[in-house]
Formats: sequence, structure tokens, C-alpha cells
Amino acid sequence: MRFNLDLSIDILRRSPATLEALLHGVGQAWARGTEGADTFSPFDVVGHLIDGEETDFIPRARIILARGPDPRFEPTDRFRHRTRNEARTLDSLLAEFAKLRASNLQLLQSWHLTEAQLDLRGEHTALGPVSLRQLLASWVVHDLEHLAQVARVMAKQYRSEVGPWVPYLPVLTDHESPRS
Amino acid sequence: MRFNLDLSIDILRRSPATLEALLHGVGQAWARGTEGADTFSPFDVVGHLIDGEETDFIPRARIILARGPDPRFEPTDRFRHRTRNEARTLDSLLAEFAKLRASNLQLLQSWHLTEAQLDLRGEHTALGPVSLRQLLASWVVHDLEHLAQVARVMAKQYRSEVGPWVPYLPVLTDHESPRS
Repeated sequence: MRFNLDLSIDILRRSPATLEALLHGVGQAWARGTEGADTFSPFDVVGHLIDGEETDFIPRARIILARGPDPRFEPTDRFRHRTRNEARTLDSLLAEFAKLRASNLQLLQSWHLTEAQLDLRGEHTALGPVSLRQLLASWVVHDLEHLAQVARVMAKQYRSEVGPWVPYLPVLTDHESPRS
Repeated sequence: MRFNLDLSIDILRRSPATLEALLHGVGQAWARGTEGADTFSPFDVVGHLIDGEETDFIPRARIILARGPDPRFEPTDRFRHRTRNEARTLDSLLAEFAKLRASNLQLLQSWHLTEAQLDLRGEHTALGPVSLRQLLASWVVHDLEHLAQVARVMAKQYRSEVGPWVPYLPVLTDHESPRS
């Protein structure tokens, strides 16, 4: 499948409602469970997605579109949400994510990006040159990555409860060493 | 986390709306993409979840609760949905899944299961004796397994579009050999 801006925005627009359906009002045992030390709970994932709205995809798209002499991205902080959201509830984070995402997608659409603009490049400190098209595709994949993670982390809270079914439920043994 | 019937039903109740938010009206490129031969697309997953409602979890719970002399489960057919849903649309499958799930959860709640009933066992042809508690826990995990799968399969449709970001997005390289 080739990158398509409208089909990408369609997925990006769904993430807040998808996470809301899965997580709004969910019990703490589901919301705060993790896969082990230094891995994300569903609560952490929503905080990380908020960080993405505030510090990652749109800010980097702006750097690319500004066409300045040094289109280098700011590094992102995977743990920014930890201190930021200490006093927050999951439901308030879900609402904040929905608001930020809607506003970022409105901005993205207002740019009416051309194919030539999608080919413009920024500089990722570790990965080197990346195009705006690749950045926007990675935004979509990043949403789906973390939705898969939320489902996996929730599933693992019942790992000991399914008894002999573990080998039939590979999600329980995915990422035994953290990969994300 | 120990098995809890109410917390399990809470998750089981969310799956139709979660999948609806993620998939209702989505383009064919997202709905029908797979991870390779004999793997499920999002369309297939919703069909498989319908099969679960009709032939797996509640039918097996009934066998256990009947306390007959031979509480052996019928084997399930992972590909039942293939022919069943040939002429269907994804949106109609999402609606059917929501209806079947609501009705099955109403039935489950009407049983007012006791701890003693949750300890009752059936016989899985490959796995041996399994309790009703383990069956219901595996129903929850099965939902989350397939939600994670849908997100992963959709993400992989953009694998070639993210350019150098692949190593930062492990969902793109999870299950390179099919595990589910």
C-alpha cells in the first residue's frame, strides 16, 4: 500500500475514539498494568500519544515545511509523560488526546500538502534524512503500534488466568523482552 | 491480576465499539490487507470473532455447566468465516458481532455464576481439562489478541512507507512468521 494522505488521516482520526471505547472508565487493574519494569501501561500509552501530539509529529512536520538551512528534529523524550501526568486520571488524558489530535489534524488538512511538499526532508539525529511522507506514515504506524501495545498489555494481565490456553494466545508471549 | 467476572465482562463489552471505531467505513486497503498467505485481514478477524460467539466460548461454557458425563468441547474451525462471509461487507460484520456479543453477555450475566461453577471443568481435545474460569479468561484475552492483530496488520500495510523508521516501530516486525 502506497502512502495516501486522506487514508492516513482517516486512521489518525480514529485513534481517540478507539482508545476511548477500549479504556474510558476501565478499572485500575486494566489501566495501570504493565509488561514489567520500564514498560508502558495503557495509562502511560495515552500519555505518550499526547507527547507525540505536542512534541513529535506536527512539530517535526513544521520543521520540514519551514525549509530552513538546518531542518534537524528535536529528539523526543519517551518518558516526558511520566512526570507530566502524575496527578492525572486516564479519562482526562483520553479527552486531552482527542482534543490535541483533532486540532493537529485540522492543521494538517489546512496545509493542503502537495506531492512535492511530501517529498521535502528533515534530519533525524539518529536515522538521517527522512521525508515528510515518511514522517506522516510513521505517525499512522505509531498509533497502531501503541494500540497493539495497549491490547497486548491488557491481555497479559490475565496470563496466569487462562491456564493451558497460553500457547493458543500468542499475544501473551509477544514482547517477552520489551521491544517498544 | 486474578480472574474477576465483572472486570472480564467490562472488557468483553468494549470490543464491538472498539472495533467499530477502528474499522467502520475504513477503506479496502486497510480492511483487506494481511500479513501474508493464510493470515487474517481485519475483515477476517471480525469474521473470526463472530465464529467465536457462535461456536466457541458460550457453547463451551454451556457444555461445562451442563455437567454431563462427557464435557468434551467441539473443536473450533479457524477458517469457518472464510466461506460464511464471502458476500458480506465489513460494516455488516461489525454490526453482527455487536449484536451477538451483546446477547451472549446478557446470557452470561443471567447465569449469576458462583465461584464453584467457575471451577467446573470441560475437556479440551488438545489441552485437556480446563475450568470455566480459564475459558472466560481466555475469551477476554482472545478479544485483545485479535485487537492487537488488527492494529498490527493495519500497521504493516505502511511498512515500506515509513522509510528508516522501521526499527523504531517494532509492530512492523512482530510476527514475521505467523503466530496467530
